[in-house]
Amino acid sequence: MSEPPALDPVRRVRVLRIAATGTSAETDVAAAEEPLELRLHDRPFVVIMRTPGADRELAAGFLLSEGIITRGAELGAVEHCRHPQHPATHNVVNVFLLGAPRGRVEAMLAERRNVLANASCGVCGRLTIDSLKTRARPLAAASRIDRAVVLGLPDALRSRQALFDQTGGLHGAALFTTEGALRAMAEDVGRHNAVDKVVGTMLLEERLPLPGHVLAVSGRTSFEIVQKAWLAGIEAICAVSAPTSLAIELAAEAGITLIGFVRGRGFNIYSHPSRVSL
Amino acid sequence: MSEPPALDPVRRVRVLRIAATGTSAETDVAAAEEPLELRLHDRPFVVIMRTPGADRELAAGFLLSEGIITRGAELGAVEHCRHPQHPATHNVVNVFLLGAPRGRVEAMLAERRNVLANASCGVCGRLTIDSLKTRARPLAAASRIDRAVVLGLPDALRSRQALFDQTGGLHGAALFTTEGALRAMAEDVGRHNAVDKVVGTMLLEERLPLPGHVLAVSGRTSFEIVQKAWLAGIEAICAVSAPTSLAIELAAEAGITLIGFVRGRGFNIYSHPSRVSL
Repeated sequence: MSEPPALDPVRRVRVLRIAATGTSAETDVAAAEEPLELRLHDRPFVVIMRTPGADRELAAGFLLSEGIITRGAELGAVEHCRHPQHPATHNVVNVFLLGAPRGRVEAMLAERRNVLANASCGVCGRLTIDSLKTRARPLAAASRIDRAVVLGLPDALRSRQALFDQTGGLHGAALFTTEGALRAMAEDVGRHNAVDKVVGTMLLEERLPLPGHVLAVSGRTSFEIVQKAWLAGIEAICAVSAPTSLAIELAAEAGITLIGFVRGRGFNIYSHPSRVSL
Repeated sequence: MSEPPALDPVRRVRVLRIAATGTSAETDVAAAEEPLELRLHDRPFVVIMRTPGADRELAAGFLLSEGIITRGAELGAVEHCRHPQHPATHNVVNVFLLGAPRGRVEAMLAERRNVLANASCGVCGRLTIDSLKTRARPLAAASRIDRAVVLGLPDALRSRQALFDQTGGLHGAALFTTEGALRAMAEDVGRHNAVDKVVGTMLLEERLPLPGHVLAVSGRTSFEIVQKAWLAGIEAICAVSAPTSLAIELAAEAGITLIGFVRGRGFNIYSHPSRVSL
C-alpha cells in the first residue's frame, strides 16, 4: 500500500503589497502550517503544528525526543491514518510500538491529554480554527493604523531589544497603540513566550481586550501568535518576516489585520487591509 | 513583600572564537534559558523553557492563551515561590485563580502532567540536565571535523532550503557526515520539527546512534535542539546563529561539540572544541 499524497508544504495566498512605488494585489506563497495528530495504537497522543511532509519521520523523531522509544527497532507500523470519509487523513499518523505491553501504552496516553477535542480522524487547520471560534469572537475594526506607523514599528521594536544586542539570540515582541506609542515590550528565547509576556503585562493590569493596539514581533507569525493576539483582543499584528498559511487563515477569521515583511519602505498585508491608511 | 530578584536574562559564557585572522579564547554573552515551573494553587501545572524576567507576565499570558483564564480579574496572587531552602525559587511561579472551584483546578491539573519529575520547589536548568542524564550517556569523540567543513555547512544547508526560497518562512535542519556529505534534510515552520524530521529519517532506517555526524540548523540552538541531538547520538551541532545558555551547558555535559555564528570565514565553538581541526 502506498502512502496518501502529502499535503503541499506551501500554499498560495492573496496579498496586498505596499511599496514606495505603489500598491498591488498579488499572489504569494506562504509556508503551510497544519496540525499533525500523532496517534499511538490508534489513540490520540499529541497534536504538533508542522509543515506537511516527512510526517512519518517527524513522528519517529518526536517519539525519540519524548523518550517514548529509544531506537528504531521499537517502531512497528508508522503510517498515515486511512479513512475514506475524511479528507484530512494526511494530518494523522498512527504509530504501533513493538513489544510495548498494553499497560505501558495506556500509561503513556494517560500522561498526554492535550489533544484537540473532537479531532476524530480528520484533524486539520479548519477544525483548529473552528475550535478557537468557540472561545473568541471576530474583532471589530476599532481604529486605523497609518502606513507610516507600520513602517516605523520594526525599528521601534528593534531599538528596544537590549538583550538581542548583547546575545544575537532572542526574539522580541512589543505592543504599540495604533498611533505608534509603546505600551509593553519583552524578549525571550521563545517567540511565543515573548508574546505571552507582552499580553500578560496588559492582563495583569486588567487592560484586556486591546482595541486600538498592534502587536509587533521580530520574526515570523505562526498560528499560535495570531491565536494569542486574538484572545487578547489585539486587532493588528505586524511582523518583520513571513506568516504561515494557517496564521493568515486565522487572522482572516479573527478580524485581525496581519502584516508581514515590513522592510525598508514596504510591507505585505495578508488580511483585513482596510484598517491600514495608505 | 517584594519579589525575589529575577535571574539574569543573559549569561557570560566561554567561547573559542575562530576567525580568518586567528583563534582566541574569549568571554561572550548568551541569552539565558531556564525552565519556569508554573503552578496552579501550589501544584505543578506546566514547565516552560524561557528567558528569566517578566515571569509573572509570562504566567498570566500563558494561562490566557491556554484558555485557563479569560480576563485579568480571574487572577488572584501570581507570585514566585518562596522557599529558603531552595535557591531556584525564581524559577517557580505560583498562581491562584479567583472563584475557581476546587474541582475545576483539579481537572485542569489532571489534564496537564508533562511536568519534570522531582522538580519540587527547585526546578532549574541543572535539574533539567540531570534528569536527561538518566536517559543518555555523554558521547565519545568518534571523529574530527575540519574547519573548512564547518565553514561550508551553512551554505550546504541553505542551498537545499527550497521551501524557504519560496516563502521566506521556514526553518531548515540537515544531517551531514563530518566529511560534509549530506545524509538527511528537512524544512518546517517549527525549528524543533525540522530536527525531529531529520533524526526521524535516520531512526526509521535504524541508523541511530550517529557518531561521525554533525547536525546543521538554520537558526539558533536551544536546549531542546541539543537534547534531540544527544538522544540521536549526534556528536556535533553547527548553527548559523546563537546558542542559549542552557544549550551550551547541556552540550558540555553531553560531549557534544556546539558551534554557533558560522558566518563568512569564522565561527564560535562553545563546547568540546577538540573535535574541530583548525
